[in-house]
Parts: sequence; C-alpha cells; structure tokens
Amino acid sequence: MSEFTHFNNQGRAKMVDITDKQESHRSATAHSSITVNKSIYQGITSNQMKKGDVLAVAQVAGIMAAKQTSTLIPMCHPIPISGVDIQFEWLQLKEDHQLQIDVTVKTKGSTGVEMEALSAASVCALTVYDMCKALDKGMVIGQTYLSHKSGGKNGDFSRT
Amino acid sequence: MSEFTHFNNQGRAKMVDITDKQESHRSATAHSSITVNKSIYQGITSNQMKKGDVLAVAQVAGIMAAKQTSTLIPMCHPIPISGVDIQFEWLQLKEDHQLQIDVTVKTKGSTGVEMEALSAASVCALTVYDMCKALDKGMVIGQTYLSHKSGGKNGDFSRT
Amino acid sequence: MSEFTHFNNQGRAKMVDITDKQESHRSATAHSSITVNKSIYQGITSNQMKKGDVLAVAQVAGIMAAKQTSTLIPMCHPIPISGVDIQFEWLQLKEDHQLQIDVTVKTKGSTGVEMEALSAASVCALTVYDMCKALDKGMVIGQTYLSHKSGGKNGDFSRT
Amino acid sequence: MSEFTHFNNQGRAKMVDITDKQESHRSATAHSSITVNKSIYQGITSNQMKKGDVLAVAQVAGIMAAKQTSTLIPMCHPIPISGVDIQFEWLQLKEDHQLQIDVTVKTKGSTGVEMEALSAASVCALTVYDMCKALDKGMVIGQTYLSHKSGGKNGDFSRT
Amino acid sequence: MSEFTHFNNQGRAKMVDITDKQESHRSATAHSSITVNKSIYQGITSNQMKKGDVLAVAQVAGIMAAKQTSTLIPMCHPIPISGVDIQFEWLQLKEDHQLQIDVTVKTKGSTGVEMEALSAASVCALTVYDMCKALDKGMVIGQTYLSHKSGGKNGDFSRT
Amino acid sequence: MSEFTHFNNQGRAKMVDITDKQESHRSATAHSSITVNKSIYQGITSNQMKKGDVLAVAQVAGIMAAKQTSTLIPMCHPIPISGVDIQFEWLQLKEDHQLQIDVTVKTKGSTGVEMEALSAASVCALTVYDMCKALDKGMVIGQTYLSHKSGGKNGDFSRT
Repeated sequence: MSEFTHFNNQGRAKMVDITDKQESHRSATAHSSITVNKSIYQGITSNQMKKGDVLAVAQVAGIMAAKQTSTLIPMCHPIPISGVDIQFEWLQLKEDHQLQIDVTVKTKGSTGVEMEALSAASVCALTVYDMCKALDKGMVIGQTYLSHKSGGKNGDFSRT
Repeated sequence: MSEFTHFNNQGRAKMVDITDKQESHRSATAHSSITVNKSIYQGITSNQMKKGDVLAVAQVAGIMAAKQTSTLIPMCHPIPISGVDIQFEWLQLKEDHQLQIDVTVKTKGSTGVEMEALSAASVCALTVYDMCKALDKGMVIGQTYLSHKSGGKNGDFSRT
Repeated sequence: MSEFTHFNNQGRAKMVDITDKQESHRSATAHSSITVNKSIYQGITSNQMKKGDVLAVAQVAGIMAAKQTSTLIPMCHPIPISGVDIQFEWLQLKEDHQLQIDVTVKTKGSTGVEMEALSAASVCALTVYDMCKALDKGMVIGQTYLSHKSGGKNGDFSRT
Repeated sequence: MSEFTHFNNQGRAKMVDITDKQESHRSATAHSSITVNKSIYQGITSNQMKKGDVLAVAQVAGIMAAKQTSTLIPMCHPIPISGVDIQFEWLQLKEDHQLQIDVTVKTKGSTGVEMEALSAASVCALTVYDMCKALDKGMVIGQTYLSHKSGGKNGDFSRT
Repeated sequence: MSEFTHFNNQGRAKMVDITDKQESHRSATAHSSITVNKSIYQGITSNQMKKGDVLAVAQVAGIMAAKQTSTLIPMCHPIPISGVDIQFEWLQLKEDHQLQIDVTVKTKGSTGVEMEALSAASVCALTVYDMCKALDKGMVIGQTYLSHKSGGKNGDFSRT
Repeated sequence: MSEFTHFNNQGRAKMVDITDKQESHRSATAHSSITVNKSIYQGITSNQMKKGDVLAVAQVAGIMAAKQTSTLIPMCHPIPISGVDIQFEWLQLKEDHQLQIDVTVKTKGSTGVEMEALSAASVCALTVYDMCKALDKGMVIGQTYLSHKSGGKNGDFSRT
C-alpha cells in the first residue's frame, strides 16, 4: 500500500533517498490560471504589441521559479532541469477574462519534475497579479494542478 | 484613472519607484487551499500527533517563501518583513477534505506585503502537494487570492 | 586622504560599518553595452513586435540582478532598493550594432546603489549574450561604468 | 515569565511580529573555532604570505553567510546588516592548533543580529574545514556561542 | 603527499576540477549538538506533542541547508543531493540537556557530501538556538564534526 | 540556418530543451578587465602581501557567481560545474593599470559553460570595483567576451 514517504523512523520529515533510482527522461505539465477584469485584460493584451508586456515578465518569472523549486519546497530534490516551456491562452468568461497558464518542464533525472511545473505555474500567476494589482486587488488565481506526467517507474499520469 | 505602473517610457517593465512613499505599518492576508482525498487527510491529521507533520513542513516553507518573494516576483520590491503567521483549518467536502491556508504578513515599510502573503500561501499549498504526491497526484490547489490588506495611502482592501 | 575601507585591523576584508550613516535619497546610473552582428540585430529588433523579445528577458534579468547584488558582491551591504529603470538604445557601428544599456537604481538608505546599477547593467548584457549565442559566440560586452551618482555625504559623481 | 515566542495560537511556528519594535543600534559577537593538525596549521599559516589563503576565503564566506542568515534560519527576520567584521587568532593546543573565529555584526534595526553573527562564525569554520579536508577529515569545529550582544530593549548580554 | 587542493598556480583559491572523477554512490554523516537549560528542554519536549515543534523547524532548516551548501561554502561543488535524514536524541547532562544532531546525506555524484552533512548539522543547531534564544542566550552549540563517510576513491572514513 | 533558439511557438521565451543532448566534457574561458588609477593599483598590489587582498575577495566572488549563473541568467540551464579557475594579470597602460581577468569553467554536462565563465568574469570585475570605489568611482570595466570554448556538438570556438 502507498504510504507517506517523507518521514523517517523518528516520525520526522526527511528528504527521500533516490540514490538508487534510475535516471530517465521525465516530463510534467501543470496548469494554473488567473481571472482579471476587462480593464486589465485590455491593458495586458493591447500591451502585447509593446516591448515588455506583462506576460513576458510572468513567463521569465515562471522559468526562473522552476529552477528555484528545490530552494522553495523543503523536501524537493535538486534536479538539473533540461527544458521549460510556458503557454498562455485567454478564456473569456461572462464579464471577466481568464489567463490559462500551462507549464511543461523536462529533465533527465532520478525523480520527477511535477513540483517544478507546479511552482512555475504558480509564480507565473503570482507575477501577473503583482503587475496588475495597482488596477484591481480582487484578481483570483484559479485552481492549480498537475495535468500530465510521464517517465519514471510509476508510469504516466493524466488528469481526467 | 488607474494605470499599469510597471512600465517605463519605452513601454518596458520597470520596478516602480517608491523612494518617496512614506513608511507605514502594513498588513496583508492571503488565502489558498488544497483538496486532498480521505486517505491523505487521515494520513496528515493522524500524523499531527507525531513530531514532524506535513503541515509543520508546509508552514516553514510558507514563512521562508514570504522572505523570498522579491527574488521570485520580478518587479517586487525587497521588503523587511516584520512578521508572518499561517493558520490552517480543515473543511470537509463531500468525499474529500480541503485544507484552508490563511497567511498574514506584516511590515513597516514603503510598500505593501500582498505579494509576500500570496507567495507564502501558494508555497504552503505546493509543499503539501509535494509531501503527499506519492499517494495521489490528483490533488488540486484551490483559488488563491488576497483576503485583506491594510496600511498604505490607497487604504484598506477586504475581499467581499 | 582616501583609503581602502574594506580592510580590518588584521588586514582582512570586512563589510564596512555604515550603522551611523544617515539614510538619504540616493540614485546611481550605470552603463554597459553589447555589440552584435547585423543578423542578430535584425533578429532582436524584428522580434520586438512579438510578445517575448530578447530585450524584455534581459530587462527582467537586470532588475532581478539589482535585487541580488548583495548576494553577488561579497562586501556589498544589503539595501532595500526602491526603484529600477533600464533604458535600451541601439547604436549603429560600421558593420555591427551596439545595444546601449543604461540602468538607474534608487534607494532611500544608508549607502549608495552604484553596485546595484553596475550589476544590473552587466547581467542585462550577459542575458542578451545568452539568448543570442546560438547565432554568434563572438559578441562583445562593452565597457561598463558608473555614469552618475547622487545622494550621500560624498556628493554627486558624473562621468565626464 | 519568558516563553517560547515562535508559536502561534495553533501551536505552530510563526515569524514573531516585530512591527512595533523600535529601530536601534544593535551589535552581536559570536565565537566559533576549528582545531586542525600541525600539518594543516603550517599549510594555512605559511600560505598567508600568498595571495589567496584559506582564511581569506573563509572570511568572505562568513561575511556572505551573515547576509544569507534569514534565508537559512526559518524564523529569522530579514535585517539590513550594516557591518561585519571577522577576527582570527591561532591558539596552540598540545599537538594541534585551534583557529579562534570571532564575528561581530552590526545593524540599525528592529531586532538583534545574534543569528547573523552565529551563522557567519559557523560558515567561517565550515569553509576552513572544506578547504583543508583533503589533508585530514578529522578536524573538529569547536563550541559555537554568543559572546556579546548590545542594543534592543532586553539589554546587553555578555557570556561569562 | 597530500596537499592543499584548492589553490591554482598563482597561489589563489580555485574550485578543484572534478570533471574526470567517476560518479559513485556516496554518503556522509555529520554530528553536532546544542546544550540547553532544563526550562528550554522541557519547553521543547513537551511541545513535541504539538503540531509545529522546535525540532520540526530545525529539521526542515537542516534539510534546506544541505541543498544550499554550494551557495554557502565558496569552493564547494554543486551536487545533486539524493537524500537527507536527520536524527535527534536528547542526552541528559548534570543540569542541562544536550540535543544530539546526526545528519546523513547521500548522493550519486563525482564528489563527496561531507560539507552538505556538516552544513545541515550546523544550521539545525543554529535554528534551535534561534527559536529558544528568547528564553536563554547562553545556549552553546557543541562540537561539529564528520562521523562517517563512504564512497569515492579515497575510501571510507569513520571518526574513532 | 541558425536561428534564435529561446522562443516557443507563441513567440515567447522558453528554456531550450536539452534533454536529448549527450553529456560531454566542456570547458569555456571568458575574459574581462578593469582599469584602475595608479593609486588603486599600488593599494591592491602592495596589499597582496597582506592576508585578505582585493583580488582574493574578487576571486571568491567570481567562483561563487559561476555557481549562481542559472539563477541570474533567466534562460540558462542549471549545470553541475566541475571546476573553476580564475587568473589575474596586470597590464600597464599609459597612466593607469588594467587588471586582466581570465576565468575557465569546466563541466561534464549537456550544455556549455560559456555563461558561467562570462558571469564569473563580470562579477570578479564588479567586486574589484566595489572594493576600490571609495578611492575612485571612475574605474571602467573593460570588454567582456568569450575567449575559448571546447566540447559539445557544435565544436570549439576561439576568439581570433
């Protein structure tokens, strides 16, 4: 039966030993989103024609956050990330607009990159919030979850 | 009219100049959550009697993340945080259980601590995900938003 | 007479004691540049119409580097930076093109922000190199220096 | 009566709220040491005439560690350190030699710099270990403690 | 004969070249301790029944410090740590109590993890100090040393 | 034809996927310099006889910066650096003196270490500036470029 893996014989947190795990190609995709009002949406999208738009900053933040994951998440193993790609898409809601954020992280390593993808997606959304909060502090970051994962001995995962 | 504040005369991102803003007492509270299945809920809560439970780790991660906010969020000003408190509460859903995460950050500074509170809440939820993902990768981090904010010249904010 | 200030009575490096220095408004502007060939110049500038151009990434990198300065430069005091602005301009050389990078950093603190401005300018140039090096590894980062400085008891500095 | 201050009403760790504490001049001195064999002692001290001796590296490491303290120690407040000075002295033991490490950190802030001084002293000793471990892995880092502290409303402390 | 390995032909510090070293399974265990008075001992141990005790925080700090070692110790190689486990045990002294801290770090890499184990043990002890210093600033961190090491071409080490 | 590699199908920056690249021995050497006046030159060089000279600090800063490169340069892959060596040489100009800085970085990895060498050289020069700026703020950091590179499928590079 599956069990918590992050506790030692004293019942205390530990970083799980992955020394014997095989290196393999691994990939994980995480999803987050942020809902903004029409005024912010127009500001961001009209700004896309300019040189340093909100999404460009958010994206750099997301990629850098993927590299900082093991510094942020205590029991996370440091992993040599081999690629990060972030995709944005706008979804029109009734009155508001929702920015869809999908982050794919890849590695050739001994453990998965789920946390790297989730952290990057979160920081991406947080950065959009930061850059638009002078206009509206009521923006909401939507559900954040793992969409897909492949590689590793536990096989693939796809959110249904 | 309100406008994007993070862009310079070249249309590029900048860190807003707050040199002339007065220092004042500021506080911000952010909310996040994570929904876990019954088995994980029982694992976490029965574990609370032990010495190093999941929530203790998540909480340390959240507090440390508050201090790392300006490293994570590109246009965020570095701020000398003067206090962080994280509160947890479990909510029973139909089949699942949802951990409520409420983070309050305080400072005496020239700009608000909304991003610090939001970042801490996100990293808190991400850490719970990390420590339970061996049991279920389908956990979902819920909506993340600013609940309250006080201090600063723009006045208070309360999510309605 | 002026003297090296970073050495203690044992002749070893120390972080200079600024406890008694007054806080004041301070500003520093630093200059750097990078010379690229025509093909890279066209790639960067035509790309400006797209959403995530080279300069947008370089600029975020520069701003984040300003905040990391005291982690990079051993004897540098940690300072609460209150604003960073980076300006780009292209200069046509005979065959090549030179990106002018001018970074202004502000603070209200007990020591100057010269190192923050210089570090940001350097990292900005390094990031352009990184993003274009697949096209040409022969790019050269130009002279990097302090252009202006104001505030503090030693008065202003302007490069002549 | 004195009590643990780092726990909230849920019995969980928090970063203590110092928003209302007055800024004052504060200073803390911490002591550590490392005992090395004669061969290492001679290597280090004869090396002092060269350009990049072991102690110079240890000292830079200690100063940089003082600045990283709030990133290392979870409940530590970020503080704008205003000065760091590290003093070394050799003590001859029967057969071995002991490097005395004394670090003084200063700030003008709302909380003390005891942890900054202690962290710097520890990292200083660890760095000496690192640079000499190819010669002997049996070196021992000695007792590490706070020697003096001044400033703040709780008054001064001197180790007797 | 063994020699200092961290100096280049100019007599200056360098990061030793390990490019040609074979990757192998490596493990290192380091020991530290902290002596606290009876009142603190009782506070910590009675608190163990609560949710976020002092040792839980210290442990997270130690694990995160292991991952930060190459950022703290200048000549240390960055290593992909594959596991960290920290064990605590209380020893009763005459009047005081001493917390024994034993940290084991593992990797599959080209160089050992002695520094990672030593750094984690030190930061663990420093964190206990931080969380109890409101009660007594006279606590002493005890001797810190390498207990065991295995793997690598130089063979095993056990402190006698 | 060569193309920008750091953009995804949305025209946004990404971290290039190197998952399938072979690990190989790689080396990169970068050059920078800083020109100082006679008084600073004499201060630095006479100081070399002491224990903690300017260049020793600059060198530690450069080595630590090489390890921080992927945190500084947004699209840079984290790489396990296996060696760093920094060489200094003084060149006499008409009135001034120019410190030549040459940094060689090595790795056994899936991507090159050009950025690590360039970042280390830049931070080295910036650190000299920091430690001498009390004497003269007019120092100029000279051209910074890649001198050599070997390893990897694109073959070697030597600046002509």
